[in-house]
Amino acid sequence: MDLKMDKAALQAFLERDFPQVANQFTFVAVAPPLLTMALSASEQHLRPGGTVSGPAMFALADVCAYFCILSVLGPVGLAVTTNCAMDFMRKPQPGRLLCRMELLKLGRALAVCEGRLFTEGAEDKPVARASLTYSIPPKGMSAT
Amino acid sequence: MDLKMDKAALQAFLERDFPQVANQFTFVAVAPPLLTMALSASEQHLRPGGTVSGPAMFALADVCAYFCILSVLGPVGLAVTTNCAMDFMRKPQPGRLLCRMELLKLGRALAVCEGRLFTEGAEDKPVARASLTYSIPPKGMSAT
Amino acid sequence: MDLKMDKAALQAFLERDFPQVANQFTFVAVAPPLLTMALSASEQHLRPGGTVSGPAMFALADVCAYFCILSVLGPVGLAVTTNCAMDFMRKPQPGRLLCRMELLKLGRALAVCEGRLFTEGAEDKPVARASLTYSIPPKGMSAT
Amino acid sequence: MDLKMDKAALQAFLERDFPQVANQFTFVAVAPPLLTMALSASEQHLRPGGTVSGPAMFALADVCAYFCILSVLGPVGLAVTTNCAMDFMRKPQPGRLLCRMELLKLGRALAVCEGRLFTEGAEDKPVARASLTYSIPPKGMSAT
Repeated sequence: MDLKMDKAALQAFLERDFPQVANQFTFVAVAPPLLTMALSASEQHLRPGGTVSGPAMFALADVCAYFCILSVLGPVGLAVTTNCAMDFMRKPQPGRLLCRMELLKLGRALAVCEGRLFTEGAEDKPVARASLTYSIPPKGMSAT
Repeated sequence: MDLKMDKAALQAFLERDFPQVANQFTFVAVAPPLLTMALSASEQHLRPGGTVSGPAMFALADVCAYFCILSVLGPVGLAVTTNCAMDFMRKPQPGRLLCRMELLKLGRALAVCEGRLFTEGAEDKPVARASLTYSIPPKGMSAT
Repeated sequence: MDLKMDKAALQAFLERDFPQVANQFTFVAVAPPLLTMALSASEQHLRPGGTVSGPAMFALADVCAYFCILSVLGPVGLAVTTNCAMDFMRKPQPGRLLCRMELLKLGRALAVCEGRLFTEGAEDKPVARASLTYSIPPKGMSAT
Repeated sequence: MDLKMDKAALQAFLERDFPQVANQFTFVAVAPPLLTMALSASEQHLRPGGTVSGPAMFALADVCAYFCILSVLGPVGLAVTTNCAMDFMRKPQPGRLLCRMELLKLGRALAVCEGRLFTEGAEDKPVARASLTYSIPPKGMSAT
């Protein structure tokens, strides 16, 4: 799986297409088939006790899978999530919450990713796991 | 499954325990084992094209399942989501996005809910489906 | 969703394309978007204590979703399962194990079904729930 | 995660508790938190075209997760599957179908595993991925 978009290209795409959430996510590593992002947790992501909310973790997994696919596929703005399965296993510890996704399959119509969320430095005790399927638009429909 | 918390009690619990998101959700119907909530979509929930974001739909399903369980179990603040599986099937239409959850099992340790998200008035074309598992805290640990 | 294959047509398709398992399943009701099948549990499906095995329940859900799609789509032999999520909630009671599937979406590329497994006569205490996605082959590829 | 049951102990447990299916599965490697098993595909597992059936892949993932947990937990016969999510991505190639599971969490009440199925020698092109949750019986309930 060759790299079609590097960190700078992905960052530009994020800022252009998702201005409302762009400041919440940071690209940490782009190395197909792997891609790692961090959540910049703010007040709105927190729950009682200071833990990161489920929806914030879903958002991190979803955006991480999306850009994992784009890093290999190129700038296809119309890919949409069709399925997600997540297991929430531990409370996040204080610190940056990371998500590392792996692109397991990039087919003509579907892409499948699998990844884990963990507090930076505590990768052996994952906070959550996620698997996501994206529907790929037919060729000829490009976002750029 | 008897009703332990009615709409007013659930509303008070939502406002007290989830002040950051309380204004985003509305209780529509509370009739165990069913519970229906609405998302008050604001700018932050929207994606290009005006569609509701995946994380906003996840948040709606998650909170709806949580209160579906509480309506039968009573005010147990420590229940946590352990698993979620969602299928995203259609774009939401303009209008209120509803989620109706059904409590399928309330065991000693686990509760399982299943539900659908749909635009008000278009229940036959669901936007998404979701199933969620919550871990129930052992007896004696109450939130009130 | 119109009926394209009735119970007799589905039964013939089952016997022709799945001879190894055809005698394990019975069509109970075909009424799109719903379809109900029964498992004829034999020794190989049972686990210690006389309960039906997980794989046998998966098989029932999978075949039921497949024929639920075919009842509306017509005889398309190449549809394949791409995703399945199941929650196992209760032990099956003695008696016939039924699965009722509902076709929630029939798109160009994907079909999504959701259903429940329950012991005949105990539908209010479901044994399991399942959601499945099938990939639909492009037009022009027919099984007949 | 320390090893509580080695390959020989797991094999004996498999033969005693699952006599109906014991000959279908082989332990390949036991190294907590990882465990690898192989499916000995026979006629009943095959579908048209010689591919391994979905239920046979589910069975392999389910049994592999079960023994992955037991290898760390010891002989607890009452653990039951409560949730499974699978993505089916590619057709198995001719050859042994392997499943390698990883135990991600072993809590008091729940254990979570995640793994991949692949044809021996083609691990980079997984046939399927699976995540499973098992409910752990309360202490004092042992199978031996």
